[in-house]
Amino acid sequence: MGKVAPGSVLVIIDVQKGFSDPRWGVRNNPDAEKMMEKVLGEFRKHGLTVIHVRHDSKNPNSLLHSGKETFQFRDEVKPLEGEMIITKHVNSAFIGTDLEKVLRKMGNPPVYYMGLVTDHCVSTTARMSGNLGFESFVIEDACAAHEATGMNGEKIPAQVVHDVNLASINGEFARVLKSEELEF
Amino acid sequence: MGKVAPGSVLVIIDVQKGFSDPRWGVRNNPDAEKMMEKVLGEFRKHGLTVIHVRHDSKNPNSLLHSGKETFQFRDEVKPLEGEMIITKHVNSAFIGTDLEKVLRKMGNPPVYYMGLVTDHCVSTTARMSGNLGFESFVIEDACAAHEATGMNGEKIPAQVVHDVNLASINGEFARVLKSEELEF
Repeated sequence: MGKVAPGSVLVIIDVQKGFSDPRWGVRNNPDAEKMMEKVLGEFRKHGLTVIHVRHDSKNPNSLLHSGKETFQFRDEVKPLEGEMIITKHVNSAFIGTDLEKVLRKMGNPPVYYMGLVTDHCVSTTARMSGNLGFESFVIEDACAAHEATGMNGEKIPAQVVHDVNLASINGEFARVLKSEELEF
Repeated sequence: MGKVAPGSVLVIIDVQKGFSDPRWGVRNNPDAEKMMEKVLGEFRKHGLTVIHVRHDSKNPNSLLHSGKETFQFRDEVKPLEGEMIITKHVNSAFIGTDLEKVLRKMGNPPVYYMGLVTDHCVSTTARMSGNLGFESFVIEDACAAHEATGMNGEKIPAQVVHDVNLASINGEFARVLKSEELEF
């Protein structure tokens, strides 16, 4: 059911050191990076293309500004020599980047997404991916979200932010699945 | 605080008859269309540009396929002679359409979004709008969502789908505000 087709591509979104800072608030899924490492290992082992996306904030005070040490990729998902890196400045990995062109050139492969954070960059990228016509997948246990503040000032727990955002994507833009469902 | 700047544009998303069908499941905010009618009236009264977006599904069985009566706009938001209509085929009103080009040509005005449904076409369009650099607003009580199914098969109430999706947009992609906050 989770058979990864030959030629599939893994896109890892914004797994940078700066996201470990407590300023982002409580996060769900503390094991996300472990899962990412495992999934990344499987894609590499099977010779599939891996694309590393990183966020370069235009705000010089951001932890994700390219001048900062916290801009670096986390060790669990550090790119290998020769793997593709795409740098973006907004949430969507398809805006202001060559990602669409790269995938078209590869013949419109199925694309698997994982990374940070579920509700912002992962959701927006997966939404555009599906709308651009790519067969898209999101690996739910290899993503994570922070708690949010609702429109009436109420706290929304990180797990609820994560779950509802995935439900909003699933079946409409992408198929959401668990890492254990992937079959290589 | 909710001052609508001169030159602002209102974009109304997918308020078509087909969405009244019970097949979509329980919806929140039954007054959404009444609010839309009111907001639309204000934008018209102040001579601001209104853009009507409609969804033309490529699936001939869809209620939003252009061959069907249910493809028509609901009466509350029916375009007037001379108002712009943009037809899209995916969730985002920016993909496969001239919307970005139209807004650029207008000098990148602030854009207000409302319509159906919060979690799919409204969210995706507002996310892209912000990421494309447009100052973006979503009018929360002039949007609505249907109940959804979570990844573990649980029902997510329509109001939760609506609220969490708006919280995920607010401050990151767009400012979410209530219709009563709008000042013309």
